Amino acid sequence: MKIKTSITKIQNDKEIIRGHELENLIQEKSFVEVIYLLFKGNLPTEKETKMLNAMLVASIDHGPGVASALNARISASAQNSTHSALASGILGFGPRHGIAGQGMMEFLYSHVDETDIAGLVSKLKELKVRVPGFGHKVFTDADPRAEALFKLAKNLEIFGKYSKFAHQFKNEINAQSSRPLPINIDGAMGAILCDMGFDARLGQTFFLIGRTPGLLAHIYEEQTQDEGIRRLDESEIEFVNVTAD
Amino acid sequence: MKIKTSITKIQNDKEIIRGHELENLIQEKSFVEVIYLLFKGNLPTEKETKMLNAMLVASIDHGPGVASALNARISASAQNSTHSALASGILGFGPRHGIAGQGMMEFLYSHVDETDIAGLVSKLKELKVRVPGFGHKVFTDADPRAEALFKLAKNLEIFGKYSKFAHQFKNEINAQSSRPLPINIDGAMGAILCDMGFDARLGQTFFLIGRTPGLLAHIYEEQTQDEGIRRLDESEIEFVNVTAD
Amino acid sequence: MKIKTSITKIQNDKEIIRGHELENLIQEKSFVEVIYLLFKGNLPTEKETKMLNAMLVASIDHGPGVASALNARISASAQNSTHSALASGILGFGPRHGIAGQGMMEFLYSHVDETDIAGLVSKLKELKVRVPGFGHKVFTDADPRAEALFKLAKNLEIFGKYSKFAHQFKNEINAQSSRPLPINIDGAMGAILCDMGFDARLGQTFFLIGRTPGLLAHIYEEQTQDEGIRRLDESEIEFVNVTAD
Amino acid sequence: MKIKTSITKIQNDKEIIRGHELENLIQEKSFVEVIYLLFKGNLPTEKETKMLNAMLVASIDHGPGVASALNARISASAQNSTHSALASGILGFGPRHGIAGQGMMEFLYSHVDETDIAGLVSKLKELKVRVPGFGHKVFTDADPRAEALFKLAKNLEIFGKYSKFAHQFKNEINAQSSRPLPINIDGAMGAILCDMGFDARLGQTFFLIGRTPGLLAHIYEEQTQDEGIRRLDESEIEFVNVTAD
Repeated sequence: MKIKTSITKIQNDKEIIRGHELENLIQEKSFVEVIYLLFKGNLPTEKETKMLNAMLVASIDHGPGVASALNARISASAQNSTHSALASGILGFGPRHGIAGQGMMEFLYSHVDETDIAGLVSKLKELKVRVPGFGHKVFTDADPRAEALFKLAKNLEIFGKYSKFAHQFKNEINAQSSRPLPINIDGAMGAILCDMGFDARLGQTFFLIGRTPGLLAHIYEEQTQDEGIRRLDESEIEFVNVTAD
Repeated sequence: MKIKTSITKIQNDKEIIRGHELENLIQEKSFVEVIYLLFKGNLPTEKETKMLNAMLVASIDHGPGVASALNARISASAQNSTHSALASGILGFGPRHGIAGQGMMEFLYSHVDETDIAGLVSKLKELKVRVPGFGHKVFTDADPRAEALFKLAKNLEIFGKYSKFAHQFKNEINAQSSRPLPINIDGAMGAILCDMGFDARLGQTFFLIGRTPGLLAHIYEEQTQDEGIRRLDESEIEFVNVTAD
Repeated sequence: MKIKTSITKIQNDKEIIRGHELENLIQEKSFVEVIYLLFKGNLPTEKETKMLNAMLVASIDHGPGVASALNARISASAQNSTHSALASGILGFGPRHGIAGQGMMEFLYSHVDETDIAGLVSKLKELKVRVPGFGHKVFTDADPRAEALFKLAKNLEIFGKYSKFAHQFKNEINAQSSRPLPINIDGAMGAILCDMGFDARLGQTFFLIGRTPGLLAHIYEEQTQDEGIRRLDESEIEFVNVTAD
Repeated sequence: MKIKTSITKIQNDKEIIRGHELENLIQEKSFVEVIYLLFKGNLPTEKETKMLNAMLVASIDHGPGVASALNARISASAQNSTHSALASGILGFGPRHGIAGQGMMEFLYSHVDETDIAGLVSKLKELKVRVPGFGHKVFTDADPRAEALFKLAKNLEIFGKYSKFAHQFKNEINAQSSRPLPINIDGAMGAILCDMGFDARLGQTFFLIGRTPGLLAHIYEEQTQDEGIRRLDESEIEFVNVTAD
């Protein structure tokens, strides 16, 4: 098996990441700048650093009750190693949780130049296509994390045609629908990442980086509480006598 | 199932992390500061931020050939979703790769007050106990990432009794052994995390946070190269006719 | 969190699976029969047992070089617990490896009543839609596992309209294409599972059950060989100086 | 990377498993016999087949509330692919759930020839060493699955010195303790696998094979119920204002 890479070169006891010596990066650059470097191939401007930093912080945790944190804590409660519990937590993400940014970016890259947004919304409603990045179980009116990110994007002059389109699209959805549907954090990050020129295939990447510390904090809390392995109580399980097929 | 948590509180459309409103953290704090907050419960000083930042950057990648990156790329080459490939990559870590910091921290917390280090080394040699955090496949003389971290720890006046003990212990190993055995990056991080007052159960946590972007960069590279699913060539498999039992 | 289930009922120190006491199943039924029971809700006939047994045996292993076995062995070589290495191996499956049966079943259930198969093939070629379940890297002419399964399905009189359609479709592909494209094991299992009346969502399930022992055998072999952690040699990594973006 | 294997040889379009052509195995052998072959290198006797079959059936499911099934269902509820949800479920196993057989086998292989069992029990109690394979959350008096397996092992004349020692040890624990502590299913399987001559490193393997169908049945049930992504209700989360450190 042969692998070609452009990310990291290890030579003569030196490690070079995208052309920069790791030893220098360790001393001179922030974690966020080096994350940007890994995916873009160049170091970010100060504004890009602030924007990416804000997205990572916005993603960092959302409590123990979401699928990813639950899985991480359950696996930790079985006394698995921290890294195994982390893997389990990550498998709690899925099309319904955390990875919607990718779909949002694909949607924006395909549709941003359309002008009849009302027509687009009604066509998608007719086809029952649900665009990822809108709506949230807890934040039903507005997702404060999304709003904070867009506000910052405006201040940093990163808010561009993709973020603008996302808002026009959201307004049109809400005009055609009876209940409000906010842009959620995945959607906001997707729109802003488009405005920063990232590939749609990176649409879940920064959320995953941002949330990893949160999952690990829940694993650590589970380890320190050490209340034994988690399981449902009998009262939480209802047996229904139905044949599977 | 009931979960108690002290990490994140979500109330009235506000998310509060360890007593700080997420909206404020997004605008005012760096990702590294909020990571520190998650695990310690308070915000770091400037020096602590620099130190933790350096450890995260030092961990960020080590090329495509290590077990974790290989697993991540193989899983991505089967066209799994980014988050599933990340989980697979994380399961490439293990007692032999990436998680040694925890063992190092447990060792340091148990032994730091011993004064007969020569006796300790010869006793461990006799018992064939291998302390995690020493030695590296590529960096056989010295691990430049470990050295960069210790240098910074000295500059920041974080280098304390645990880092000092790790060096004394390493010197004694090398005095009693014919081939040099450096402190590796896991060991350096373990020693410094002790000096920063972190719990030994967090001994692999910061490495996992630091390396997650590296795994995701390899997943993205695999997705963009798209050379089909990876497998060993026939020439890389040798069939040996041995009965299993 | 509340979960409704119809699978297993635990009451008064008795465990009842789909209406059958586990203690009786342990003594009277084969593993394959109870697997069938789990998913169908009733016990299989002798013919159905033979057919399902054959599919599970056919799936059991395909050597150490495929993505799933590679991942399992790499994770085991890092000295992870057997179950963690198994999880890693399972994440080596993906749309390009092992889970094509589901797509095949969805295809067959949607198209089995079409009569213009030549037209269907040319339309799919035009749309560049690749139906899962056809073609194999090693078995380019014919997949002997698929052929053995179809032969048995005929003997057991399970070979029905779905298996027949799969062959007609394959013949038409080969008539319109220059290189032969066999039905692979995933495709054969998909077609036969349709003829047995299984839901398309179970299209990867029986392959996963069948291959799990194979992955565990590779993990065990890796543990007994114990050659240290696996990684690519320097000669297997090529650094190419390209910017990521 | 080079891998040596003795499991499967693929040559001239033929696949040979431990010296047996897969095509023949598909037609002539049961899944359980081929599982035995994979790990032992030879085909089992009729009695060995019955015993292994019983262990696999006994392991097949234990309801939706245990950590592994919960994780599998949560991951499936996020709409992950079946194989990803299965990996998540497997990461719900751990030292406290499902993998105790390995520890039991190591214990039995080390201690089976000791004659002062009362002394051994009191020594272990003093050292606070808990031998894995004893005790169960639901089955507090006796684990009916364990009893069914031991009964069958006696009938098949497989019940030997390891199973006998396990019972003597259990009786001694119960003589020295106020509350009854049964041999659980992991312990029973561990003892019987010792009597069948299996390596202790296979101590969790057959449980994992046996339970995989159960996890997949829960994943399928979750997919068919499709009640949306699972999460804890607000009432199930209690925020406690404690600093982490």
